[in-house]
Amino acid sequence: MNTSHQQAEALLTDEVVAAFAGTPDPRLRQLMQALVRHLHAFVSDTQPTEAEWMAAIRFLTQTGQICDDVVRQEFILLSDTLGVSMLVDAINHRKPGVATESTVFGPFYIAGMPERALGEDMAQTPGEPALVHGYVRDTEGRPVPGAVLDVWQTAANGMYSGQDTAQPQGNLRGRYHSDDTGYYAIRTILPVSYPIPGDGPVGRMMAATGRHIFRPAHLHFMIEAPRHRTLVTHLFNAGDPYLSSDAVFGVKPSLVVAYQQRGADDPLAARFGLRTDFHEGVYDFVLPAE
Amino acid sequence: MNTSHQQAEALLTDEVVAAFAGTPDPRLRQLMQALVRHLHAFVSDTQPTEAEWMAAIRFLTQTGQICDDVVRQEFILLSDTLGVSMLVDAINHRKPGVATESTVFGPFYIAGMPERALGEDMAQTPGEPALVHGYVRDTEGRPVPGAVLDVWQTAANGMYSGQDTAQPQGNLRGRYHSDDTGYYAIRTILPVSYPIPGDGPVGRMMAATGRHIFRPAHLHFMIEAPRHRTLVTHLFNAGDPYLSSDAVFGVKPSLVVAYQQRGADDPLAARFGLRTDFHEGVYDFVLPAE
Repeated sequence: MNTSHQQAEALLTDEVVAAFAGTPDPRLRQLMQALVRHLHAFVSDTQPTEAEWMAAIRFLTQTGQICDDVVRQEFILLSDTLGVSMLVDAINHRKPGVATESTVFGPFYIAGMPERALGEDMAQTPGEPALVHGYVRDTEGRPVPGAVLDVWQTAANGMYSGQDTAQPQGNLRGRYHSDDTGYYAIRTILPVSYPIPGDGPVGRMMAATGRHIFRPAHLHFMIEAPRHRTLVTHLFNAGDPYLSSDAVFGVKPSLVVAYQQRGADDPLAARFGLRTDFHEGVYDFVLPAE
Repeated sequence: MNTSHQQAEALLTDEVVAAFAGTPDPRLRQLMQALVRHLHAFVSDTQPTEAEWMAAIRFLTQTGQICDDVVRQEFILLSDTLGVSMLVDAINHRKPGVATESTVFGPFYIAGMPERALGEDMAQTPGEPALVHGYVRDTEGRPVPGAVLDVWQTAANGMYSGQDTAQPQGNLRGRYHSDDTGYYAIRTILPVSYPIPGDGPVGRMMAATGRHIFRPAHLHFMIEAPRHRTLVTHLFNAGDPYLSSDAVFGVKPSLVVAYQQRGADDPLAARFGLRTDFHEGVYDFVLPAE
């Protein structure tokens, strides 16, 4: 490439940036001009052939076309697998060091799920029984009573109720509440690792780049309490083989829980009506004030 | 933002880049890792809120979903309106200074259009009569005989045959050929400026950013000749009000033709069977050797 070509290409970028100078909304203007500069820098750096450019057009088109209004959102999946969702999460949830870290929301949350009592079992499908419990506290260590812990996870088949229409409505979902001491308790089954959808453009991208499509086992939480910042996070199972290679980059070491094997004679079993061996997971959440 | 947050966010980018390190194809690896770096840089620079990120997801999804297999390709339109198509064109068609410049291909080409004789009229719908003629030469100034000039333009209503199913098949399209001296001649109607599709996500983006959606009037060419590089370009009408603000950034000054008004008594009229006043456009194309 000679210099005059480089100059002409840089002038083109300037011309496109200038075309957005009249954007009435200053934030939209900033976003569009930055988008043009970064997108053109990517093209200038990689020098795509016309066939490569056309392959990208086809990929994006197919990514939009496989989406439906219900459970399939392939562009969120693309954002997740390129680490963009976690970056947006990190930028929007910078917190004091002591607060519980956040992670991706994911596409499988459903609002309005059943209210659950302390220790109520949210599993209507089989799996290894588990009890997840602990305290919700503020950054000063004080209990946060009346926090709503909206919880969701997959069944043993790796699919969420709603996504998997064969599961009963509300299965492995529910809204738990911390008590006056900040204590919460969730009866459920042990989460399992599962693949993200692999039959679309994102799945093909993962295969072509030699990446697997698994997420390590986790339990989703959205925790809301008056006068505190809402926390969206997961608890991951220690020892999961995908902890260091989560397809969507959601793992943070502080969110990994080492479940312990407990017998049916454990005092917790009697308290929460468990009649078999179970896995105990203990985790205390820390919410910053608003 | 404090430094530890910045560090954590930079580490996330590194982690995602590393996830693509095992991509078997080295070119795909290069493209994906550069994509991640530039995409994350855009996000880090602009610090989008979660609502802005979700708006981007919705925009991309709708852009895919409005595409059809026939005439609507909204992602090409997005690439065009962000200047990316012209940048890819520039990168792939760097040429010696004397060669005719290229511009965007556009989505409206149709292969296999009628073979046209020298000076044959390709217009089956009304408009201001025009004759476009000149020579095809190589970079040494020698004639290029037997070049195929595949030509297409909109009708006076601003739509292409194929896109506008009311027009006869092959209207304002055809394959002309240069003669032994390199001479070509096209009878047609004067091109008009026209809007790109404005009823989709790209149209909404253009409206929100205060940009108009017009392209200046132009005639499309794809010129192929043995032992020469194929040229994809337009000829634009001098004086068009959108020449300096083409919605897709396709204009280059060297591609602007000043059409001249000619009377029905002009010798060219007799030669090509024109019986009315007409516009004469003269342009010589220069093709580099392969």
